[in-house]
Amino acid sequence: MKIAVLGTGGGARAHIAKLAELGHEVHVGTRDPEATLARTEPDMMGTEPFKAFLAEHPGITLHTFGDAAAASDGLVINGIDGHSAVTALTAIADQLAGKTLIDYAVPYIYNPDVEHPWPTPWGTMPKLDPCDVDSLGERIQRALPRTKVVKSFVTQEQATVVNPKAVGNGDHTMFVAGEDADARQQAIDLLKSYGWADVLDLGPLVCARGMEMYAHMHSAIGFALGFGTHFGIKVVR
Amino acid sequence: MKIAVLGTGGGARAHIAKLAELGHEVHVGTRDPEATLARTEPDMMGTEPFKAFLAEHPGITLHTFGDAAAASDGLVINGIDGHSAVTALTAIADQLAGKTLIDYAVPYIYNPDVEHPWPTPWGTMPKLDPCDVDSLGERIQRALPRTKVVKSFVTQEQATVVNPKAVGNGDHTMFVAGEDADARQQAIDLLKSYGWADVLDLGPLVCARGMEMYAHMHSAIGFALGFGTHFGIKVVR
Repeated sequence: MKIAVLGTGGGARAHIAKLAELGHEVHVGTRDPEATLARTEPDMMGTEPFKAFLAEHPGITLHTFGDAAAASDGLVINGIDGHSAVTALTAIADQLAGKTLIDYAVPYIYNPDVEHPWPTPWGTMPKLDPCDVDSLGERIQRALPRTKVVKSFVTQEQATVVNPKAVGNGDHTMFVAGEDADARQQAIDLLKSYGWADVLDLGPLVCARGMEMYAHMHSAIGFALGFGTHFGIKVVR
Repeated sequence: MKIAVLGTGGGARAHIAKLAELGHEVHVGTRDPEATLARTEPDMMGTEPFKAFLAEHPGITLHTFGDAAAASDGLVINGIDGHSAVTALTAIADQLAGKTLIDYAVPYIYNPDVEHPWPTPWGTMPKLDPCDVDSLGERIQRALPRTKVVKSFVTQEQATVVNPKAVGNGDHTMFVAGEDADARQQAIDLLKSYGWADVLDLGPLVCARGMEMYAHMHSAIGFALGFGTHFGIKVVR
């Protein structure tokens, strides 16, 4: 398939590399391709410049967000951070029309009162916006009525999403939610191609609330196990 | 041990029956013992009158909330609903002083605009209060500075909490969080006596946020699996 991945961060790169490995034609979208390619230093997270990543993954094309979405023949993965996603996606609504958009962002907002917005054990806590009575997944769907939005991937690190067998030999659970059953099935099929054996279809997109709000629990479990411990959750039934 | 359970609902009854079975002296607290014993009809959830439950579980004493807490020699389980917990517990702060209080309530608030406040697939969604930047567990701890509050049990049906082997032969995970390490250990010891093999200590009570916010995910998974399906989550690592 021709699949678009929007974003060039660590999570997006996990999908880009895996999709290319699976033989898909991958179109990567970024806000400003020239600026992305001009970077020569690792970012503040220590991630290598995207140009170096591209050199290691031949055959991948870098576009603007809109051109990448237009190049997809049906499936788009949204790796734009939750803070910017609605605005950036609304600007390319025409190119996303009729396609399935899988979103995995956690809508943590930046707290202007603290230098580092990320959860720490336990001085600074992140905050979700939206939360509880709405979700980023639903917000994106309302902004893109012609696109079939699926929320998935969000309950795991993306490195584990594309390589589920790295944890417990793959014996854990992934979730999908979205209004369109065919779109959810597209996401399930993609996840099966990634190696997932247990994908639980939660049904309507309102379930994105629980998936996004699980971020607090994910952080708590991660800190309890220790930084760098990879884990997943399995629905035992 | 002499253990107090505050509340007479279905969740509380699961703990009361299990604690009595394990040989503890169980002191049950209710707002108005006479009114509780006067009920002769099942409630709107179909739960049998508490008097009938007591007849099936001899040796259990029914008190006011305060007298039950006072009768505990160190451990109190809070089964008062999240809506009422802070007010009811603050009123008996003296009787709870120096003790460990395990709270498992989900702070769903009642939506006055709808007849039934519970999540339904998917017309009505519940709302948490507090949420995200605070939790009921933290709120209770602030109201009871002389009590060691532990959040636990909240990620499962209480029938499964007291009988973990009913799901996946017990191969799933329970969580505890609280400011006091000894109090967390008391909760862990209790859970081990219930049959739990995997109890993950999340550390400080701020982790109650994630445990309470997981309620949305718990509901979504429950609805996806179908009403009446018992399940748990396992942290695979």
